[in-house]
Amino acid sequence: MGEFELLARVRERLPPLGTRVRVGSGDDAAVTVPGGATATSVDAVVDGVHFRRGQASPGQIGHKALAAALSDLAAMGAEPGEAYVVLGAPPDLSEDECVELLDGMVGLARSTGTDVAGGDLTRARELFLALTVVGHAPRAEDFVSRAGARPGDALVLTGELGAAAAGLALLEDPQLATALRVDPPIGGSNSHPADALRARQLKPEPRLGAGRALAAAGATAMIDVSDGLGADAAHLAEQSGVRLRIDAGLAPLAPGVREVAERAGKDPWRLALGGGEDYELLATLPPERLAEARNAVRETEGIELTEIGEALAGEGVEIRLPDGAELKPEGFDQLG
Amino acid sequence: MGEFELLARVRERLPPLGTRVRVGSGDDAAVTVPGGATATSVDAVVDGVHFRRGQASPGQIGHKALAAALSDLAAMGAEPGEAYVVLGAPPDLSEDECVELLDGMVGLARSTGTDVAGGDLTRARELFLALTVVGHAPRAEDFVSRAGARPGDALVLTGELGAAAAGLALLEDPQLATALRVDPPIGGSNSHPADALRARQLKPEPRLGAGRALAAAGATAMIDVSDGLGADAAHLAEQSGVRLRIDAGLAPLAPGVREVAERAGKDPWRLALGGGEDYELLATLPPERLAEARNAVRETEGIELTEIGEALAGEGVEIRLPDGAELKPEGFDQLG
Repeated sequence: MGEFELLARVRERLPPLGTRVRVGSGDDAAVTVPGGATATSVDAVVDGVHFRRGQASPGQIGHKALAAALSDLAAMGAEPGEAYVVLGAPPDLSEDECVELLDGMVGLARSTGTDVAGGDLTRARELFLALTVVGHAPRAEDFVSRAGARPGDALVLTGELGAAAAGLALLEDPQLATALRVDPPIGGSNSHPADALRARQLKPEPRLGAGRALAAAGATAMIDVSDGLGADAAHLAEQSGVRLRIDAGLAPLAPGVREVAERAGKDPWRLALGGGEDYELLATLPPERLAEARNAVRETEGIELTEIGEALAGEGVEIRLPDGAELKPEGFDQLG
Repeated sequence: MGEFELLARVRERLPPLGTRVRVGSGDDAAVTVPGGATATSVDAVVDGVHFRRGQASPGQIGHKALAAALSDLAAMGAEPGEAYVVLGAPPDLSEDECVELLDGMVGLARSTGTDVAGGDLTRARELFLALTVVGHAPRAEDFVSRAGARPGDALVLTGELGAAAAGLALLEDPQLATALRVDPPIGGSNSHPADALRARQLKPEPRLGAGRALAAAGATAMIDVSDGLGADAAHLAEQSGVRLRIDAGLAPLAPGVREVAERAGKDPWRLALGGGEDYELLATLPPERLAEARNAVRETEGIELTEIGEALAGEGVEIRLPDGAELKPEGFDQLG
């Protein structure tokens, strides 16, 4: 099958475009009228580096690539707008797998209100995806950067940590699932708790609603937890010029993380704080706006916002584990 | 060297950002205030598919990847704005080669007034680049799509064809250079004519000035010649719902193309019209605006605009070669 036939098949599956996009996929460029400020982020994933084709289905790979890109927009407090997709397709990726991959992506685009406005398809030896996402806000000042934290701000985290790391451990060693207690099925649901952990690794959801809620509630700085809480806190501290003190014991661990970590012979906190890919949001905001932010996050996203530390004058990150030990924020500074 | 160190080294080399970009590389997303309509295009190149590391230097690879992307903006009549770069770096790409590649890109960004506003760097088994470029215009209607050609419009081409294809033939068989007559050096210049052909293949220039000039002179449809004149004319004809009649003998061939083609045992017109990658612009416009367009392209870009055919009612493309034969517009519809 040629490129044009496949592109035509893909285009047929795209949902109708929103009003901002005047010309979509198929011309030299997509035409949009942003009507304010834009936040643009690019994010690439490569087989063998960010995922393994054997472990994740094509649909999951497509979903996760877009989720990781949209998570950057969530961390800006942006309204998602457009996505542009580059797919590097190896010879052994069938046409059906190609379409399945793009379907996974389009499913998330649809549920988040993102227009897939353009793309490029190329041959490659290994499967890769490069996503460009554009988010919107009325004014540039409405976006939340990493650089605005001030001493005295509270440090808050959405949701729970560790599920993605535990899910990855379960994918690599299915035996670890025996660590998890299976509750008797209630009301017909009998999914294994390991499934929820694996789903957080394979099919994460960007916290777009929580990001906008935190921006509206006065977040001074924000970042998504993609490299691990320690590494991402270090980015935020450095770009804001503050010191972040984190009480790791306050950060909620997802159900099952403790059990999987212990069975794998790892410290649950080190797994949860170092593993990354939870795509939760870490933000700073004035303490007097905590209650408002907590309510807004609960309403928009249905998850909890937890205060896990504070911003102080100085530099660097200080993470105290529940046993009193200090965790060094590992620099996940390898290509990846 | 880690990702963050390399990114820091790259960032140091970027020129200062223009006024549209409020937050550049280094946050979750780049923040811009477009102030009108935007045209966005993505374009990926992969080692072994679009270039060969042995044939092109890292700087040339970076330059050409951005040139190909910006050529799509030229074809919209857009003012270039921002570029976002994904680099997939294989283990054998050294840090210096990485920087050289990005320098090649930044050189073209600088000369075209494009801000490199963000990017992502990832490990990969093979070298690839995915470029997203954003161009601007006051209103969406100011962009020139592929879809506006009308029966009665003149069909025009910027510059000359065939140089990129002849340059590629020379790269693959250096013996072909003996076909080219070397003029005695005048005023100290003694570069071989084969150098100019190879340069058009390795370091093409996007026709951004000509694209804006054609848009201002009333172009009704426009496309860049990246797949070959035949294939690109077919796209334009299909999306506009017209028939394009092309007199190939009117299209100027770049100096040396005829000689290289004949030495290689190929028909010069088939080489020039099928080879692609010349990144000239093919446009339609009302005949009464031809003189104005020709002058504007000469003034902004210093090249000629040539009328090579016309748009008629109907569909498809009809290409007459100088010997009276008809050339089928090859569908370059393979992944590539």
